[in-house]
Amino acid sequence: MDMPEMMPPTFQDMLDAHTRIKPYVHQTPVLTSSFLNDLTGAQLFFKCENLQKAAAFKVRGASNAVFGLSEDQARLGVATHSSGNHALSLSYAAGRRGIACHVVMPHTAPQAKKDAVIGYGGQITECEPSTTSREAVFAQVQVKTGADFVHPYNDPRVIAGQGTCAHELLAQTGGLDAVIAPIGGGGMISGTCLTLSTLAPETAVFAAEPDQADDAARSLRAGHIIADDAPVTVADGLKVPLKDLTWHFVSTHVQDILTVSEQEIIDAMRLIWARMKLVVEPSSAVTLAAILKHKDIFAGKRVGVILTGGNVDLDRLPWMTS
Amino acid sequence: MDMPEMMPPTFQDMLDAHTRIKPYVHQTPVLTSSFLNDLTGAQLFFKCENLQKAAAFKVRGASNAVFGLSEDQARLGVATHSSGNHALSLSYAAGRRGIACHVVMPHTAPQAKKDAVIGYGGQITECEPSTTSREAVFAQVQVKTGADFVHPYNDPRVIAGQGTCAHELLAQTGGLDAVIAPIGGGGMISGTCLTLSTLAPETAVFAAEPDQADDAARSLRAGHIIADDAPVTVADGLKVPLKDLTWHFVSTHVQDILTVSEQEIIDAMRLIWARMKLVVEPSSAVTLAAILKHKDIFAGKRVGVILTGGNVDLDRLPWMTS
Repeated sequence: MDMPEMMPPTFQDMLDAHTRIKPYVHQTPVLTSSFLNDLTGAQLFFKCENLQKAAAFKVRGASNAVFGLSEDQARLGVATHSSGNHALSLSYAAGRRGIACHVVMPHTAPQAKKDAVIGYGGQITECEPSTTSREAVFAQVQVKTGADFVHPYNDPRVIAGQGTCAHELLAQTGGLDAVIAPIGGGGMISGTCLTLSTLAPETAVFAAEPDQADDAARSLRAGHIIADDAPVTVADGLKVPLKDLTWHFVSTHVQDILTVSEQEIIDAMRLIWARMKLVVEPSSAVTLAAILKHKDIFAGKRVGVILTGGNVDLDRLPWMTS
Repeated sequence: MDMPEMMPPTFQDMLDAHTRIKPYVHQTPVLTSSFLNDLTGAQLFFKCENLQKAAAFKVRGASNAVFGLSEDQARLGVATHSSGNHALSLSYAAGRRGIACHVVMPHTAPQAKKDAVIGYGGQITECEPSTTSREAVFAQVQVKTGADFVHPYNDPRVIAGQGTCAHELLAQTGGLDAVIAPIGGGGMISGTCLTLSTLAPETAVFAAEPDQADDAARSLRAGHIIADDAPVTVADGLKVPLKDLTWHFVSTHVQDILTVSEQEIIDAMRLIWARMKLVVEPSSAVTLAAILKHKDIFAGKRVGVILTGGNVDLDRLPWMTS
């Protein structure tokens, strides 16, 4: 197997990240539901990153990157291209350190997303909705500002930060047979593998993914990264492809990647809202959908389920618009 | 002032209730929101009873009543008339003890509410949607079954149980300047007064109520119970009047009752969903609405806010239908 270009983060990097970010992130609660335990036959422990700062686990990795910068680096700020939770989270973390955060975002992005980034103090530079334009505009922003690029997931600092979630989850539950998390670019799954492979190698790591954006599942079967061109799914946080660093963790530590249909995602999302009284985004619901679809894998087991985020348009709920 | 017919519960009753119900209820988390702190100028501690068993604080009082019954009493079951969270909660508690729960409910109640009661193991007897019919049918059920009547709020066992919520809240926060809770029949407010008047007499107790169901606020001003006939409000848990036991606590310990408009309730409910990622019912949002309307009272203070429940129709959200 090829080694990634950057060195993967170590377990010690994750521990350092946890110490570094603790003042800026919540230790989110772990909630349980007798109803969902009965329904699945498993004992589920939901790690509520939807109740995290900026309503997403991404604030862990973003905070680790931002607060790990030297004073000289920090003075120039940070930059990223994202229209999702990473942009919010990096803006939040930069705001807490009092440094600039530059976000390159297509001008076609929903105004609500732009407003949210601005609300956290991020500075938006708009590009055309194409990879070429985004990369060109981002390069200009970096040259002009000297800001440090914090990739949404293919960055060892980000992966080490995301690994703090499983670190808390283990301590809060006292041990698990399995952990399942959604997979998009693979940042959360990589952080989970990083932490569990050292701390609880007996705990199996599963990923869940939409059928309609199943590039990670196909990559795992093929033995190399397959990137989809423009997948369409209600789980809009899971459209991005694996990169070398996350592929390193996925290919070596993930037990299996389970895929689910759009309707299964929407049904599971509604179940979480209705029974757990939690606002979660569609990307967060692929895990419960996968457990419901593959009860045989999880029955009788203690399973950690990472609810990754809660940023959703309350005027357009998928069970109303679908 | 007249003494109530029943003896009010004591602080020791609340402590006993807490020991009794602990195996059957969650210690719900207390969550905070920097955004809402900034918006209100106060430091808010949200006690998340929407994440409670049966998604409502009412399971505390119901469990205290059910698990306090002697074996002989328990054999005959419990009964109540309610179409709301008390019916769900009593059904849940009776189910945990393995005894019958009889619920008298108008045949016009929404099927979803009937299904929820049945889902928790309650047995429904339908009546006409009038007080006369409800009382006649309920009397028949009691005679036939010998079940113990557990009133939704005017019952010392229920009030002692609700008081366990403020007991936890104080321990979880380490002291508060004020606590605010919604007021309907006054069970939660009475339990809160019961606990805080002994444990933290310096903590002011505020209640919040819809303008359109402001019978408790008018009662407090008049110095006697005023019962509205049939108030109409989106906060459907808050339509019922005070009774002698709850009036005892409200009239002696509540600092003030603040009222808010329907639109203010809906706006506050949406804010909690959008910023805290919690599903709460309209009745739970009157407190934040009151804090936003009366910032002068709460600014600079540490305020406990009791989010009372999360049972809401996900197909009919008030910001979509209003």
